[in-house]
Amino acid sequence: MTSVGSSDDHARQLADVLICADYRGHHSHGISRLSVYVEDIATCSCAAKGEPKILKRKGATAWVDGQNLLGPVVGNYCMKLAIDIAKEVGIGWVVAKNSNHFGTCGWYAQQAVKSGVLGMVFTNTSPCVFPTRSAEKTLGSNPICMAAPGNSQPFFLDMAASTVAYGKIELANDSGVDQIPETWGNDCEGRVTIDPKSVLSGGGLQPLGGQEETGGYKGTGLCMMVEILCGILGGAAFGKNIRRWRTNEENANLGHCFVAIDPDCFAPDFTGRLQQFLRETRESKPLSEDNPVIVPGDRERAHMRMCDDMGGLVYEKIELEILERLARRCNVPSPVNIDENPS
Amino acid sequence: MTSVGSSDDHARQLADVLICADYRGHHSHGISRLSVYVEDIATCSCAAKGEPKILKRKGATAWVDGQNLLGPVVGNYCMKLAIDIAKEVGIGWVVAKNSNHFGTCGWYAQQAVKSGVLGMVFTNTSPCVFPTRSAEKTLGSNPICMAAPGNSQPFFLDMAASTVAYGKIELANDSGVDQIPETWGNDCEGRVTIDPKSVLSGGGLQPLGGQEETGGYKGTGLCMMVEILCGILGGAAFGKNIRRWRTNEENANLGHCFVAIDPDCFAPDFTGRLQQFLRETRESKPLSEDNPVIVPGDRERAHMRMCDDMGGLVYEKIELEILERLARRCNVPSPVNIDENPS
Repeated sequence: MTSVGSSDDHARQLADVLICADYRGHHSHGISRLSVYVEDIATCSCAAKGEPKILKRKGATAWVDGQNLLGPVVGNYCMKLAIDIAKEVGIGWVVAKNSNHFGTCGWYAQQAVKSGVLGMVFTNTSPCVFPTRSAEKTLGSNPICMAAPGNSQPFFLDMAASTVAYGKIELANDSGVDQIPETWGNDCEGRVTIDPKSVLSGGGLQPLGGQEETGGYKGTGLCMMVEILCGILGGAAFGKNIRRWRTNEENANLGHCFVAIDPDCFAPDFTGRLQQFLRETRESKPLSEDNPVIVPGDRERAHMRMCDDMGGLVYEKIELEILERLARRCNVPSPVNIDENPS
Repeated sequence: MTSVGSSDDHARQLADVLICADYRGHHSHGISRLSVYVEDIATCSCAAKGEPKILKRKGATAWVDGQNLLGPVVGNYCMKLAIDIAKEVGIGWVVAKNSNHFGTCGWYAQQAVKSGVLGMVFTNTSPCVFPTRSAEKTLGSNPICMAAPGNSQPFFLDMAASTVAYGKIELANDSGVDQIPETWGNDCEGRVTIDPKSVLSGGGLQPLGGQEETGGYKGTGLCMMVEILCGILGGAAFGKNIRRWRTNEENANLGHCFVAIDPDCFAPDFTGRLQQFLRETRESKPLSEDNPVIVPGDRERAHMRMCDDMGGLVYEKIELEILERLARRCNVPSPVNIDENPS
């Protein structure tokens, strides 16, 4: 990142967010996306230096201009602001415009939990979802993220408002799967398809719920709700007007929304009750003994434990090769040393 | 309601909420539920008189004890408080405990829109949803509601976090449908079923998305997120500990969460952008010309227009008969005059 002009500090902030995603097992938002950020800075589609600017500040709220900086720089700035405000007045509600892809929402929500408050994070994204009844992709997969501190573990929900992410369809396709569930994606004309190739070649995602009959209109509503909290509230690009993914002729001008909630303003012992709720949900009788009930955050915790046990992050060889090629292109030493036969 | 002890004012508040649901076409939350509220007051499971009490008040937040009053009394009190706080500090975030069923979330969110701010409303409910992988109903269908003012119309999302509501399965069954989609409900042991009778006899609902493979874990996450905002934040009953629907040996002790957001604290011309977003979504190319793309709130607007055109609300004969029986039981004049052959 610094080789194409990013400041040390900004590059470091981006690195933290990408590595956090890989550590949590969300490889689609990890280091494999580094080339997208490098490209954005190299082509000046994203500003390499500067800092976000507060445009309005009142009570529990702040409206921030991201100054077209790297998403993580804007995200960290806004989440910290939201947390600081929440400590003062109970809630911090910060909306940013003029930002870029900020990686995994979970990173920011985690900052809230580390400060003892609840964090909610939303962002709009490039259009990739067909609204119910529509033959056009006019909505992003607009994620909803909430993290809340428990006595021993946080609740950690970080989900796109589409049934699945593109990455899951790519994975199915790469693994030779030729039939995906009916509620995952549509072909390029918006018709339901169970062929992953057809989704990946110009098609798109279905909103959570799938088709209208199976509740897809609710997923459509959630995509729109997030867009209202981000693009519409922030005065950023919104809906079909957001630039397509992996294009950068125009600025992304994404909108984000960060909410911090101080549980001390409400009933005492929030963390105890939350822990009880997580425990009671997990301990409910499973349909199958082989498949215990889990709660949002458990899958990520298991992945982090695995990394800890192995003493580092685990990548596919292809991911490392892509990193190596990127290093060559940027004329920097390769960060990886691909060993065919790790001991 | 007054015949069993409710104050005039409380009875009127309940009537407004129930009629609002019928007007918007959500009959499952309308006057057909009156008997539940009458029962709650008659058996003293719900307090007939009094007013909610603020337990904590700081900055953008308030924590309210609903004093076991009728849900609409608690809801109106809290939403008004949230709106007032938002006008002062940009955001109003009010959480209530010790409340009862408050009817349709939309009623409260609508109050926010009438005041020119965005409203978000959440409540926990009696357990009726099977979390992903679970054979037990430990979560409510915990609704998510957001209303936001546009130039000419509001955005209006009011959805349970289950794929469908019970009412939709009852309707299918009553209409003689013998197969429902795979993502709607489970039988009494938590196994997927497409037989509506099997859902209705001790079974329950699937979270939005349906089974794990089709994104049901996201619906589970949303059910839990709402519970955290309501029962956990408010110190009310939560999850599997909430009393079953239509039982009243113990107090319901429901939790609600009301959020008001003043758009003036963020980018200017929120209402114009929102209207553009609604228009652009609606105007996207439909898959079928017979089925235009609609946005959350359109279905309700169409129903309200129909009522306006007909000069009143339209009920099924069975609903009126139930009302008549209830009137006899309460020893009050019947509010309806069932005419077999309306002119």
